[in-house]
Amino acid sequence: MESKGKKHWFIPDGYIPEQSSGELESHEAICVLNCHPEPAHLSITIYFEDREPLDNVCETIPGRRTKHIRTNSLNNSENRHIPIGVPYALEITSDRPVIIQYSRLDSSQKALALMTTIGYA
Amino acid sequence: MESKGKKHWFIPDGYIPEQSSGELESHEAICVLNCHPEPAHLSITIYFEDREPLDNVCETIPGRRTKHIRTNSLNNSENRHIPIGVPYALEITSDRPVIIQYSRLDSSQKALALMTTIGYA
Amino acid sequence: MESKGKKHWFIPDGYIPEQSSGELESHEAICVLNCHPEPAHLSITIYFEDREPLDNVCETIPGRRTKHIRTNSLNNSENRHIPIGVPYALEITSDRPVIIQYSRLDSSQKALALMTTIGYA
Amino acid sequence: MESKGKKHWFIPDGYIPEQSSGELESHEAICVLNCHPEPAHLSITIYFEDREPLDNVCETIPGRRTKHIRTNSLNNSENRHIPIGVPYALEITSDRPVIIQYSRLDSSQKALALMTTIGYA
Repeated sequence: MESKGKKHWFIPDGYIPEQSSGELESHEAICVLNCHPEPAHLSITIYFEDREPLDNVCETIPGRRTKHIRTNSLNNSENRHIPIGVPYALEITSDRPVIIQYSRLDSSQKALALMTTIGYA
Repeated sequence: MESKGKKHWFIPDGYIPEQSSGELESHEAICVLNCHPEPAHLSITIYFEDREPLDNVCETIPGRRTKHIRTNSLNNSENRHIPIGVPYALEITSDRPVIIQYSRLDSSQKALALMTTIGYA
Repeated sequence: MESKGKKHWFIPDGYIPEQSSGELESHEAICVLNCHPEPAHLSITIYFEDREPLDNVCETIPGRRTKHIRTNSLNNSENRHIPIGVPYALEITSDRPVIIQYSRLDSSQKALALMTTIGYA
Repeated sequence: MESKGKKHWFIPDGYIPEQSSGELESHEAICVLNCHPEPAHLSITIYFEDREPLDNVCETIPGRRTKHIRTNSLNNSENRHIPIGVPYALEITSDRPVIIQYSRLDSSQKALALMTTIGYA
């Protein structure tokens, strides 16, 4: 039996804030849940407003584990990263059904702000 | 093969804050992802509480690109904009499937606040 | 042809904050979009943790309009309101398809916080 | 007739903040709505990044009630809790259809931040 979830996810509003204040660093995360006993292999494509997509970014989520992946840690086989302060979007495919939630913590100005949403699948 | 996504989207809670503080300006954005190689053409209708809708607002998202559109930049062929400080809602149709997320940054009071949601499709 | 949307919506996390600071008052809103030319009539049931539901709360959304309804303005025929500082949940039925988004602005502590989500339908 | 809702829910981004400031304590809640006259029995599995899941966490939602459950109150039959400051994810099954929304209040830095989303079902 297949686990619950979907194999194809989208997050249109990606943005890594340039500034931080206080102890908490501004960051985003894609939070992936894999309920299946075997690992899920993700392939991520990153879309921009003004340049070609960055693809073949790979991540593995072990079986019966969650992984909260900071987007600034994503990189492809040529070690290309997502630039900070630039609007982008994510397309994520997985070889097994998973559930993906996207969150951002922004401490650009004093205090901090949070936002989150389940991805589109 | 059609790209993933939907051709008809809705955002009921639109509001452009009147005030800003600090370096970051209060704003909203509709973040659109078009995974298809060809451009997507959007037609947007803006609904209000107390007046007729504003329609025929057009935007184009190039192929394999995202576009994070600030709502204060939207205008129709008669150059009518969304007034600030007024509750409104968005209906967005596209000639190709796209994925749409809505986000607001509010810096009306010190520090800033964020909110986001995938639209209804 | 029916308009897009759904006739039955749910918001499990309702809470009217007790405190405010600065110029912006803490509040919640259910933002309803009615794309149909005729009015939509809503009937709202409010569920609590420790008492019987409050039902028969009515609202009308005119045709081709949005209405951003502050939850502290909701009341039934006996003029009963949602108490502040108490967890509650909303069930909303409509005689026409509508789209509903829930948002909260909390200025209990300095600055302000926002959260939003499309309802469950 | 079955109530509206789903019996299987997922929240990938769980995290109990370690710090609080001001009067409001940082916390998360899973807000469950049970519209059916009879109680709903939940069984919750908590997934981590680096250890085996914690399962058999049970909660009951009375009929026609909501319950806003703070995640730091969840514990299983061996009285094991969710550790603070650790990324985790939730899988929730219910014997009746319910609707679940997840929210976090973070007051780690001055002021406070909020985020919310309807769960994935």
